[in-house]
Amino acid sequence: MVKIESANIEAFNRIQAAQPVIIGIGTALDVVPGMQKNMILHAGPPIKWNRMSGPLRGAIIGALIYEGIVKDPTEAEKIAASGDIKFEPWHEHSGVGPMAGVATAKMPVWIVENKTHGNRSYCTLNEGLGKVLRFGAFSAEVIDRLHWMEKVLAPVLKEALSKRSEINLKSLIAQALQMGDEVHNRNRAGTSLLFRELASHILDTNFSNSDKKKVLEFIHSNDHFFLNLSMPASKAILASAEWISGSTIVTTMSRNGTDFGIRISGLKDRWFTGPAQMVKGLLFPGFTEEDANPDIGDSAITETCGLGAFSMASAPAIVKFVGGKASDSINYTQKMYEITEGESEHFQIPTLDFRGSPTAINLLKVCETGILPQINTGIAHKNPGIGQVGAGLVNPPMKCFEDALEAFVEAYCPEKYLAQ
Amino acid sequence: MVKIESANIEAFNRIQAAQPVIIGIGTALDVVPGMQKNMILHAGPPIKWNRMSGPLRGAIIGALIYEGIVKDPTEAEKIAASGDIKFEPWHEHSGVGPMAGVATAKMPVWIVENKTHGNRSYCTLNEGLGKVLRFGAFSAEVIDRLHWMEKVLAPVLKEALSKRSEINLKSLIAQALQMGDEVHNRNRAGTSLLFRELASHILDTNFSNSDKKKVLEFIHSNDHFFLNLSMPASKAILASAEWISGSTIVTTMSRNGTDFGIRISGLKDRWFTGPAQMVKGLLFPGFTEEDANPDIGDSAITETCGLGAFSMASAPAIVKFVGGKASDSINYTQKMYEITEGESEHFQIPTLDFRGSPTAINLLKVCETGILPQINTGIAHKNPGIGQVGAGLVNPPMKCFEDALEAFVEAYCPEKYLAQ
Repeated sequence: MVKIESANIEAFNRIQAAQPVIIGIGTALDVVPGMQKNMILHAGPPIKWNRMSGPLRGAIIGALIYEGIVKDPTEAEKIAASGDIKFEPWHEHSGVGPMAGVATAKMPVWIVENKTHGNRSYCTLNEGLGKVLRFGAFSAEVIDRLHWMEKVLAPVLKEALSKRSEINLKSLIAQALQMGDEVHNRNRAGTSLLFRELASHILDTNFSNSDKKKVLEFIHSNDHFFLNLSMPASKAILASAEWISGSTIVTTMSRNGTDFGIRISGLKDRWFTGPAQMVKGLLFPGFTEEDANPDIGDSAITETCGLGAFSMASAPAIVKFVGGKASDSINYTQKMYEITEGESEHFQIPTLDFRGSPTAINLLKVCETGILPQINTGIAHKNPGIGQVGAGLVNPPMKCFEDALEAFVEAYCPEKYLAQ
Repeated sequence: MVKIESANIEAFNRIQAAQPVIIGIGTALDVVPGMQKNMILHAGPPIKWNRMSGPLRGAIIGALIYEGIVKDPTEAEKIAASGDIKFEPWHEHSGVGPMAGVATAKMPVWIVENKTHGNRSYCTLNEGLGKVLRFGAFSAEVIDRLHWMEKVLAPVLKEALSKRSEINLKSLIAQALQMGDEVHNRNRAGTSLLFRELASHILDTNFSNSDKKKVLEFIHSNDHFFLNLSMPASKAILASAEWISGSTIVTTMSRNGTDFGIRISGLKDRWFTGPAQMVKGLLFPGFTEEDANPDIGDSAITETCGLGAFSMASAPAIVKFVGGKASDSINYTQKMYEITEGESEHFQIPTLDFRGSPTAINLLKVCETGILPQINTGIAHKNPGIGQVGAGLVNPPMKCFEDALEAFVEAYCPEKYLAQ
């Protein structure tokens, strides 16, 4: 066990030391490693078109229209099924995507760098709420917004970022936790602090006053804007703890709407999957549980990093969005200390007298205690083209962890494995 | 007792129904009722120059220089002592001022209107931290900043406000309470939300890009900017409950650095005073308790309105500024339910499962229980010209409440009073 312990300490220390900062904004094809023109990145573990859920299919239809590869949904479904488009997980390209998490070559992405370890991560820019691509909507307003984001939002923000010092995301997240966010389903403080950091530099750009104003209004109108930065920040932190020989720390938890997948530091890039679960929570008026798709998105990277539901004690007001009582939010956080390696030095929870958030999920502790990681999340409609229908709480299937443990034993203790 | 009960219900209902919104910005001489050219408004109950504390004297020196009435501090002290300048409490002019709370004729002020009852309130714009007039500093940088605020900040904000719908402060404060503020000594969320509301409208003004940028940077640099709106919002709410015959609700708690004064709804504009207490808390590096001035400022209007220390359970992170443990913040709020009439419908405390903040201090309950209202506050240096030296917690002297109770009995139950 000594090797596992020291490997996990190494993983934990790397997570603790990581310092993700915003480097800038680039086009996916130019900056995302391995990105190709005929490739679509998506949330969760690898999946083929024929097994994809409705919202992921919807987002891919929208992405193909946005990219100009097809003219309409029928043509999109045809080419998507043809094998001419490569579908690959964001996580295999150093990135993350919320909900369907779909990204194409032309899309602008945030570039985040972990200054301590030098690795980079990527994520698209958040589109807002309602009818948006990440929830599987693909109507003209969705596509028009994506074009505006490419032509105006991203260039303005890119120039604004070039006018100032790098924005430290670990610091911004730490502050947001003091202001009622858990930076997964509540990002109001993070968005506000980012807005403050960017506003005067947006004025410094050479764009028209009208474009600058539209950019400010767009960010102001969307309290989830910061999610697409808390996610790549979490990814940049955790990527530094990937692939440490002997470590049982969970470095990825992710869902594609059909499967839930995890990856373990000491088991490199192997995925361990099980069926994505149904989310229990609050549905928007007019929708029922029948409308809901199973759990989807890479946003559980926040929980993997000790944020999201792991830091829900920081965000009692979130229960108005995901259901439950404020005291539940404290209970969720308390429970997560039982399956994690330690406590964050940077992410502190005020209501727990500034105790550090539960950090670095240990596969062994999950299997020993039977306590599954807690996740809070948005709920997408199960059919393509509709969008978000609610938000709530969910867990991974235990199967992911059982399979990962078996693989770990096989890889590291072959004698013990064969003796079983 | 029936008359007191019904009068207090009336006062409570008025507080509950009040809706303070930002109307705009004006010059004190033009908009503050009764303001005169040779008048200086200050925090707390009435006080003469010879009894004023160091920080109040310092702020008055600075104000006289700013106003162009004198050239230097020596001349300022001379004219201040001469009787040629009228000193009157902000509270007797429908306004409030943080710390020394000094305002002169030329100064720009926020204009807040209670849309439900039609009354207005006023407050200067917040100067920031460090060497500032409200903490008694009066060096050239302080005066220059005040001139910039008059010539650039206020006109830009005034025009920006004219470009948009009125900003509802009750709603903004309610949101800030979900984001870790108690809007007295923690205003980071309120400032952030206000910044978001104003930014795109600042772009709409006819000022130079450089002026717009400086205004955004000024607000961004000062997490207390919203204090000078939470205070007049509280004042506009409470003023609607002033002067209700038979009511024992406290409508004012206020300090001038020498005396602590309260006013009671049923006792009209009479002040009941006692000695301002020393604040217990955290002093900035390099200062000791010897440096501290007694309690000063109108900012206890927030506590009078159920905010500030009364809502500290919303703001556990504030203990890093005022001292104590996060759990203390919950205890302060819990205790205040014992001396208040009811719970706010609008101001909800997430960690108490959205219980309304303790609202409408009842003089009778304070006297019956012996529990004094809790206040958190900044600490000014006792000498003029220095500034803030810390922050902490303080109570009013019980004498104010004892005197007020005696006056109440005298006014409303003369037989009982004479029989004593």
